[in-house]
Amino acid sequence: MSQMISGGVCAAQGFRAAGLHVGVKTHATWKKDLALIVSDTPCKVAAMFTKNVVKAAPIHVTRDHLAKGSIRAVAANSGNANACAPQGVENAERMCAAAAKAIGCAAEDVLVASTGVIGQTLNIKVIEDGMPELYGLLGRSDAASDAAAHAIMTTDTVKKEFAAEVFIGGQTVRVGGIAKGSGMIHPNMGTMLCFLTTDCAISQEMLEEALREVVRMTFNRISVDGDTSTNDTCCILANGMAGNPEITEKNDRYVDFVMALHEVCYLLARSMAKDGEGARHLITCTVRGAASEKQAETISKSVISSTLTKAAVFGCDANWGRVLCAMGYSGEKFDPEKVDVSFASDAGDILVCQQGRGLDFDEDLAKKILSEDEIEIDITIAEGDESCTCWGCDITYDYIKINGDYRT
Amino acid sequence: MSQMISGGVCAAQGFRAAGLHVGVKTHATWKKDLALIVSDTPCKVAAMFTKNVVKAAPIHVTRDHLAKGSIRAVAANSGNANACAPQGVENAERMCAAAAKAIGCAAEDVLVASTGVIGQTLNIKVIEDGMPELYGLLGRSDAASDAAAHAIMTTDTVKKEFAAEVFIGGQTVRVGGIAKGSGMIHPNMGTMLCFLTTDCAISQEMLEEALREVVRMTFNRISVDGDTSTNDTCCILANGMAGNPEITEKNDRYVDFVMALHEVCYLLARSMAKDGEGARHLITCTVRGAASEKQAETISKSVISSTLTKAAVFGCDANWGRVLCAMGYSGEKFDPEKVDVSFASDAGDILVCQQGRGLDFDEDLAKKILSEDEIEIDITIAEGDESCTCWGCDITYDYIKINGDYRT
Repeated sequence: MSQMISGGVCAAQGFRAAGLHVGVKTHATWKKDLALIVSDTPCKVAAMFTKNVVKAAPIHVTRDHLAKGSIRAVAANSGNANACAPQGVENAERMCAAAAKAIGCAAEDVLVASTGVIGQTLNIKVIEDGMPELYGLLGRSDAASDAAAHAIMTTDTVKKEFAAEVFIGGQTVRVGGIAKGSGMIHPNMGTMLCFLTTDCAISQEMLEEALREVVRMTFNRISVDGDTSTNDTCCILANGMAGNPEITEKNDRYVDFVMALHEVCYLLARSMAKDGEGARHLITCTVRGAASEKQAETISKSVISSTLTKAAVFGCDANWGRVLCAMGYSGEKFDPEKVDVSFASDAGDILVCQQGRGLDFDEDLAKKILSEDEIEIDITIAEGDESCTCWGCDITYDYIKINGDYRT
Repeated sequence: MSQMISGGVCAAQGFRAAGLHVGVKTHATWKKDLALIVSDTPCKVAAMFTKNVVKAAPIHVTRDHLAKGSIRAVAANSGNANACAPQGVENAERMCAAAAKAIGCAAEDVLVASTGVIGQTLNIKVIEDGMPELYGLLGRSDAASDAAAHAIMTTDTVKKEFAAEVFIGGQTVRVGGIAKGSGMIHPNMGTMLCFLTTDCAISQEMLEEALREVVRMTFNRISVDGDTSTNDTCCILANGMAGNPEITEKNDRYVDFVMALHEVCYLLARSMAKDGEGARHLITCTVRGAASEKQAETISKSVISSTLTKAAVFGCDANWGRVLCAMGYSGEKFDPEKVDVSFASDAGDILVCQQGRGLDFDEDLAKKILSEDEIEIDITIAEGDESCTCWGCDITYDYIKINGDYRT
């Protein structure tokens, strides 16, 4: 069993981090905009990227560097996505070179990521100028991870940072991570920015398999607005410093590691959905009784992505008809006459639709349930025994406000 | 060449219509909620319905009646969708029977449609009680079509009603229609409610082909909120009273008829997008230089469906990065480095992205262009010579307001 611990991306042995304001974001707020994560020793790395055809320059550079072998560090900025921007690849390479110079490694040993406005030239000068100071700030404390977590935030209102530890072969193995993501969230095979670190000794193949498995069950099951970003990147650095017997196959030790990794990614993904731009409600939608996990996932994702369902949740309105409608256009076949829907939260739970028909329910209780910050939509279909949970958020006036004039 | 005329659904010979408030909607507003369209003689009918797995009861009943042969009338109510509701099929049948009794035909000669809240029992009593009065109001005037058009509106702020005439084989052939649609609009193989009438003499096969062809190019290319409704219905009644030589193959006469039908449906679809719930801007997105019409359509539809692009248009913000992002996750492959994007309206046009890179453009002019009611997003890719246009609208505070508490 894994256990949650503090320390975020610095929880695992041999990892240091820092975050700083260098000027990619406006000086008016002095918000941090450059993060650095460094391992004392070379790491194995697994990474997943956006499936969007339009990919940001840092993704191309990071892929090249991954192909060249082990990695020492991740450099990431917020405030500018370096996507569809002039000199994109050149500037991403310069960012790696600046980090490498400070660390004393090769530029190919650095992964790079950016997030923010699309289409504007990255101010690489302020990044290069600020890198030595950022390097000097590297630390192993909670505060160091906190600074890095803040430095990758854009419209996020809370930092996303979690860590867990688990015993593997008599050794304490730690996994931690930071993530950002608030809008343009509908991950597909990656997510917004998420940097994970672990001291687990694990083979390249098993590390890739673990990341793929966990991302599928966490980041690929959240949606804020249905827009899959150009910059989605999720990577894990493993330096093996925990000293556990190396995991090279899918045995019990692999399962223990995956569970710890899952715990961290699940909490990061959930906090992304909860902090969706302008969101007031976290929506957790579980579909049970499905013929396959995939069927349950497709239906659940369709519900949390439905603009009308999101608007109903914003209005604390138990409009289950929109839930059925969203299930119906998901692309999955099922018998609408065998669907049960209930809403739940800390304030209670209420069955509103049974066998595809509306029930006379207590509207006041339903309103009370839906007025909580975290609400659940529980759906049962009659196709089999599989289930799946996805996470989303409501759509609010603030979402429109935030996104009506994001660039200025 | 076809020409626009007045008369809406009563423009074609032999069709009468009426609309009335009977009490499906609250008496507080006395808004019309029941419509009837009757042909003097039996009609051939072609119809298309929602692809949503969850289908409203009237769709099942209408399909049964279509299978039984020719049709005399359409009865439709607003205020209640009769979807996922108790006694759904029974009440839809009773609605047909009530209309048939007034008209003096068989219940199977009547098509039925409903739109409004999902999941609540239809108040069939007020419909049955009101039907004789509604029948008494049937007329052939502009006012009669206007009343029917109003009686199918829900959150629509303007009625949708158009008609066209064309000469076929020396005879004047007329096509007219009314439609409703404002939210839950992302038609797939049908649309919200749309009733079309024509006096054209045309074979069943050609009528079906014409409707399929035109719906594909009009209603299936609009989106308000990405939610495909449970009640989408689009049907055309053809009574042959124009006396033209019957159209039985895809000859010039068929093309003339399709052009008139297209003109009516194009205007209805466009007005649905423009009247999208809470919308302030009609967005017309054209993709040129595609390898196929399908590729252009998929990319264009992805752009008009992107919540972030819609929010940017609401803010009059020329955020073309979101346009590229939405193109990129459409599922179509293209070279992002060969994409041009410009914005246009009555206030001018401006190129903002060339060969996948942002240009330094006049932000004040861009703002002015995007402040108009009707704006265009013009995209060129370098894959071929095909093009396609789709229509959508912005997302506003009012959309959230309207949908945050729709049921009450």
